[in-house]
Amino acid sequence: MIDVYTSPTPNGHKVTVALDEMGVEYNLIPVDLSKGEQKTPDFLRMNPNGRIPVIVDRDNDDFVVFESGAILIYLGEKYGKLYPSDPKVRSRVLQWLMFQMGGVGPMMGQANVFYRYFPEKIQPAIDRYQNECRRLFEVLDSRLAESPYLACDEFTIADIANWTWVRTHKWSGASVEGLVHLNRWLDELGQRPGCQSGVEKPKLERDKEKFIQGARTMVQR
Amino acid sequence: MIDVYTSPTPNGHKVTVALDEMGVEYNLIPVDLSKGEQKTPDFLRMNPNGRIPVIVDRDNDDFVVFESGAILIYLGEKYGKLYPSDPKVRSRVLQWLMFQMGGVGPMMGQANVFYRYFPEKIQPAIDRYQNECRRLFEVLDSRLAESPYLACDEFTIADIANWTWVRTHKWSGASVEGLVHLNRWLDELGQRPGCQSGVEKPKLERDKEKFIQGARTMVQR
Repeated sequence: MIDVYTSPTPNGHKVTVALDEMGVEYNLIPVDLSKGEQKTPDFLRMNPNGRIPVIVDRDNDDFVVFESGAILIYLGEKYGKLYPSDPKVRSRVLQWLMFQMGGVGPMMGQANVFYRYFPEKIQPAIDRYQNECRRLFEVLDSRLAESPYLACDEFTIADIANWTWVRTHKWSGASVEGLVHLNRWLDELGQRPGCQSGVEKPKLERDKEKFIQGARTMVQR
Repeated sequence: MIDVYTSPTPNGHKVTVALDEMGVEYNLIPVDLSKGEQKTPDFLRMNPNGRIPVIVDRDNDDFVVFESGAILIYLGEKYGKLYPSDPKVRSRVLQWLMFQMGGVGPMMGQANVFYRYFPEKIQPAIDRYQNECRRLFEVLDSRLAESPYLACDEFTIADIANWTWVRTHKWSGASVEGLVHLNRWLDELGQRPGCQSGVEKPKLERDKEKFIQGARTMVQR
């Protein structure tokens, strides 16, 4: 059994969406960011960076994996799903996964910080990150104009990584208007049962004010 | 032969350091960011994101790989070097590679933007990113207190990814003072021949003012 330490954030949802899409049972352990549970000594022993998600594979010597991108690869390899074995396709999965890890995630994250959580309103910083999000959405749109999914003809972990973030574009104040291929992909993935169930977990902290309070604590530390 | 499209930036240096450390010959193609060469139609056909580095493997049907993290994995697998095959060790390499891709790189990058390139001086944004860099450096230091290298007892692509960024900490205005384990690792890697030669390539744009001009163009677009 896999233990999943997570919270209802895009990075957290990557793991529950992947496991639900793979049809794997797991043990969900909600981590309350508003209480700083990700900074406790027990949690830091699993991930010294103090961030969710983290998994512990109880069937593999309690092996710990942190960083959402590394967890997706671990699960794809372990269960042989959503991570095609052809070397070129697998590299394309990694390329679009890295595009999310180094681009979409950090830039939407910074847009959220300055648009939603920062104590001061700094318009040039808000503009910078919302514009960069839009630029990255246009890159995804251009890719999805030529391919049904990001890496290949199949739904993979690269789609999961990007979808859990891009679906929250309104929270970042970044528009997907006019991007017909990106919207087609957003709609299609949003109808997949595993995508739907994965982003409903965990229920903890669904209270918006509590969530914002938790995010502000992280910004200020 | 591998064609390497790159520039003298931390992400670009990852690839030349990796190839030099692996002892592989390659064809270096400098991309002049100050002239926007990474946004030309020819370049965008290789990487729709318009960013260096990109490689083209002429011995593998001209296969194109973009995103520095995906390139490191591709090279590690192709040459069977700096990417140990043991599954647990390999996952740890990916975890620390993702830590750089999603953390160290984006945060040092944003520190550079607000500290060096942004048209206005916005002190709260500068502080935010320099503090976050320091926090991430402390995480690396805690890991390097218990392990000679980031992923395991061997030098791997995870060290390359983090080192090419952390070595430029002064440019980001972020301090490594007092972090003895991180400094031990920085010094040791800085003495490796492949690390030394990799960060000397390409020579193009070593002119500081020209480099800053190129970076400003990217920030404003």
